[in-house]
Amino acid sequence: MKKVLLTGFDPFGGEVINPAWEVVSHFQSKPYDEFEVEVKQIPTVFRKSIEVLTRAIRDVQPDVVISLGQAGGRSDISVERVAINVDDAMIPDNEGNKPIDEIIVADGPSAYWSSLPIKAITADICKSGIPASISLSAGTFVCNHLFYGLQHMIATEFPNVKGGFIHIPYLPIQTVGRWPAMPSMSLDVMVKAIEMAIIASVR
Amino acid sequence: MKKVLLTGFDPFGGEVINPAWEVVSHFQSKPYDEFEVEVKQIPTVFRKSIEVLTRAIRDVQPDVVISLGQAGGRSDISVERVAINVDDAMIPDNEGNKPIDEIIVADGPSAYWSSLPIKAITADICKSGIPASISLSAGTFVCNHLFYGLQHMIATEFPNVKGGFIHIPYLPIQTVGRWPAMPSMSLDVMVKAIEMAIIASVR
Amino acid sequence: MKKVLLTGFDPFGGEVINPAWEVVSHFQSKPYDEFEVEVKQIPTVFRKSIEVLTRAIRDVQPDVVISLGQAGGRSDISVERVAINVDDAMIPDNEGNKPIDEIIVADGPSAYWSSLPIKAITADICKSGIPASISLSAGTFVCNHLFYGLQHMIATEFPNVKGGFIHIPYLPIQTVGRWPAMPSMSLDVMVKAIEMAIIASVR
Amino acid sequence: MKKVLLTGFDPFGGEVINPAWEVVSHFQSKPYDEFEVEVKQIPTVFRKSIEVLTRAIRDVQPDVVISLGQAGGRSDISVERVAINVDDAMIPDNEGNKPIDEIIVADGPSAYWSSLPIKAITADICKSGIPASISLSAGTFVCNHLFYGLQHMIATEFPNVKGGFIHIPYLPIQTVGRWPAMPSMSLDVMVKAIEMAIIASVR
Repeated sequence: MKKVLLTGFDPFGGEVINPAWEVVSHFQSKPYDEFEVEVKQIPTVFRKSIEVLTRAIRDVQPDVVISLGQAGGRSDISVERVAINVDDAMIPDNEGNKPIDEIIVADGPSAYWSSLPIKAITADICKSGIPASISLSAGTFVCNHLFYGLQHMIATEFPNVKGGFIHIPYLPIQTVGRWPAMPSMSLDVMVKAIEMAIIASVR
Repeated sequence: MKKVLLTGFDPFGGEVINPAWEVVSHFQSKPYDEFEVEVKQIPTVFRKSIEVLTRAIRDVQPDVVISLGQAGGRSDISVERVAINVDDAMIPDNEGNKPIDEIIVADGPSAYWSSLPIKAITADICKSGIPASISLSAGTFVCNHLFYGLQHMIATEFPNVKGGFIHIPYLPIQTVGRWPAMPSMSLDVMVKAIEMAIIASVR
Repeated sequence: MKKVLLTGFDPFGGEVINPAWEVVSHFQSKPYDEFEVEVKQIPTVFRKSIEVLTRAIRDVQPDVVISLGQAGGRSDISVERVAINVDDAMIPDNEGNKPIDEIIVADGPSAYWSSLPIKAITADICKSGIPASISLSAGTFVCNHLFYGLQHMIATEFPNVKGGFIHIPYLPIQTVGRWPAMPSMSLDVMVKAIEMAIIASVR
Repeated sequence: MKKVLLTGFDPFGGEVINPAWEVVSHFQSKPYDEFEVEVKQIPTVFRKSIEVLTRAIRDVQPDVVISLGQAGGRSDISVERVAINVDDAMIPDNEGNKPIDEIIVADGPSAYWSSLPIKAITADICKSGIPASISLSAGTFVCNHLFYGLQHMIATEFPNVKGGFIHIPYLPIQTVGRWPAMPSMSLDVMVKAIEMAIIASVR
């Protein structure tokens, strides 16, 4: 039976929840016949995030790793295509780090592609009635940092693992009182979308 | 026991569903202790929409009338404040009418205020964790037309009725495949928001 | 020769310039053969704005009054259609007033229409290659307040004056450093658009 | 004296003008004391665009290459950071090609960084009062294709050349009649911004 490691960040940037972790934690108690899902919370901290993910991959020995992050302001599930080898933070991470134009892995390539079946994932989520699209940038904050670190681990240490990153919108409650209004997506919708992503990835 | 008439339009503008009617039809079979909800579908047609609503109000004899419409592209529940006495269509309605700069009621005032407790409704929806705000324009298509017609009926024929209009976002399925991505809101979230609006209105 | 009174607000909401005044002041020294333009700066203050405008109208005795305001975040020239009889401020004005749900004119109608030829203005600006559209809401801050006050003055005291309100985007410099990026429009483009509006109004 | 090759695409996607070429052609007749600008129009066609650029670089022997493209919908000057090794078209190019998930250069790296001083360019444009920001994606259409091709040429054939890509907004005239309204920027503002970019690049 295939093993899936699903990760989500803790809250950052003044938010008290992170939809990524809310979605991920839903899979903690969900049994599936065809695969097994292990979940892990990742700190929104440069370097430390990759360390936590590395230990989790070594512990869990997954076939598939899907990392989730919050993309406040986006309207749909965005399946990231590419991670780039640079940290360039506009706000501090959860431990106050704010790297500017720093390389993530000294001898790493400029970019890594997601090794998830991103087109199949996007098509399957859309078929289930939930808006999704391919995204061409995971930013240059901790989301892209972790995504790059994950793909580098896969490239150098876990060649049989498939992995990638998916950005999700705010939860409705995170947008209450904002002006102008911002798009959001319900927890159950996002959980269903990520379930579609997992199924497409273990296929 | 107070009676609430809840209305929603049929699909228009190339859509096969209208979230307004999807939400409204959910209340068809929902029993409440403190109030009773009657539902009515309204055709997205100038004039005819007001006629259908007029008959429904005469039949149901409601204490509160809440009309719902789709506001594609908006991110939150928008509680309309004011209806204006003009039709100015950018697309044809469902029977091909496309009035330009026409007055709705010949001797009617330039505008009517919603007589729903719009601030309380907005606050209560927000308190329930769902984004909502006051909107200052219901447009100049059939939504504003019906809203103006409703307030005119109330002003001239049903002075004890409270009534108003609420715009709701697209359902997620309506935004699948759109580029760029558009905001949406789940049916259950919108149903809960409208339930909050009803409760605030019958209070 | 027809006389035009053109007004623009002083800066508010933390801005150091107001594009409305920047545009208006450009007309101070612009001689035209067919009409004469007088300009007046208006304080972004409830009540006082209307008082200053009233005195200016009595002094200038214009045939046409066009008031301009900044609509940060909008992309095009928006020619306002309707002013509503309510003040509802989300931020304080320049003297700290923040009225909530207050009527502007006690016995005034719920709304006044612009008496400018708004469709002709919009079409002429578009024909000159500049994006423009009819707007259905001037908000509930000082812009709508002044617009309502202007139309009330016209209705009650100056029946031969044509008047209305036009909202304009940020100037490019006001959007420098904003994240996410916001739309703007150059001063010379806005000046040309307002010149088109004046010409259409005095025709 | 340093030589700058400035390129802009021909119109595509139903547009009759391309702001990129409008800006570029402005530099045809502009003499500068410190550098010389040569301009070249590039066809919005996969492969052919790179061929035309290659010939131009061989002819002109520039020190700096800056390629411009239209990014309809963006509000500011966006200085691209990274080109990725994939073509994935949502619309056909000007010769009907619509590659899906194709590699641009068979043995090329996954991505190339711009070798322009992107932070200095962005800062200088902002200092001149024009909004600009770093962009993390040039898309997967012909803009990214040319950008990747340019950086590959530099990496393999012209190691002393600095080069990169800048996306610019629509011109005002391109947004006339659009609903909803879209952001635009004036030609003279964009010309000034690109002049700042050239000066920062030849420094």
